[in-house]
Amino acid sequence: MLTNLEHLGLAVNDLEAATSLYTALLGQAPYKREHVASEAVDTVFFQVGSSKIELLAATSSESAISRYLEKKPEGIHHVAFEVDDIWAEMARLRTEGFVLLNEEPKRGADNKLVCFVHPKSAGGVLVELCQEIKQ
Amino acid sequence: MLTNLEHLGLAVNDLEAATSLYTALLGQAPYKREHVASEAVDTVFFQVGSSKIELLAATSSESAISRYLEKKPEGIHHVAFEVDDIWAEMARLRTEGFVLLNEEPKRGADNKLVCFVHPKSAGGVLVELCQEIKQ
Repeated sequence: MLTNLEHLGLAVNDLEAATSLYTALLGQAPYKREHVASEAVDTVFFQVGSSKIELLAATSSESAISRYLEKKPEGIHHVAFEVDDIWAEMARLRTEGFVLLNEEPKRGADNKLVCFVHPKSAGGVLVELCQEIKQ
Repeated sequence: MLTNLEHLGLAVNDLEAATSLYTALLGQAPYKREHVASEAVDTVFFQVGSSKIELLAATSSESAISRYLEKKPEGIHHVAFEVDDIWAEMARLRTEGFVLLNEEPKRGADNKLVCFVHPKSAGGVLVELCQEIKQ
C-alpha cells in the first residue's frame, strides 16, 4: 500500500528562476538543495505539510530531465508515493500487471530507495515508489 | 502560505477503468464518488496519507476536462494546495504577480472553496488553492 504522497517532481529549465517562482507561490523558501550525480540533476526541495515539491534541473544532456524537456514543456514530471517495504510493493505491483522501470530499488535523491512505474501502465503518470533508507 | 498538498487531480477518459487501475496501484479502494454539476465532471477520491488522488472524468463536451483531453493525453491535470485563508492567499499571489483564473473563490468538489492559478504563471503547472468550507 502507498502510504503518503511523498513528493511531486517538477522538471524545470532554469533552477534559479523556478526556485524564485516556487518560493513566491508556496510562500516559503526551500529547505534543501541536492546534486544527484547518478541522475545528472540538481534538485531543490520545499516542504508543504507532509509532502515535498522537488524541482529538477538537468546538469547533462544525458539526464532523463533533459530528454523529457526536449519533448515536453516544463511541468509535473513524476509523483512519488512513500511505501513501508519497497520490495513488497514492487512484487505486488508486478502481480497486478504494472510495468516497473527498475528491476531492483535504486538510490535516489533525499536518502531514498526508489523504483519507477512505467507511465503507460499507470494512466499516463510517471509514478515513483520511495522508501527512506534507514541507517 | 500553502499548508498541505491537498490533492492531485487526474484527467481520465474512462472513470471505471481508471478507478480499477488506481485501486490496484494504490492498494486500496476509493472512499468517495461525487458528481460536480458546476464543472460537468464525475470524480472518484482516494486518500493517501494526508493527500487525495482525485480522478476526473467529463460528463459533457463543455467540461474543462473534455477540452483538456482533446489536446493532451490522460495524466495529471492539476495540483491542489490547502490554504487557511483563500482570500488572503489570492491577494498575496496577485501581489507576487501570479495570474488567477478566478476573481473570487468558487465552490468546488469535496466541500471546498477553490481558486486556480494560471499555469503560464506557475511553471506550466495548473495550481489550485482550496479551503474547506466550514459549516
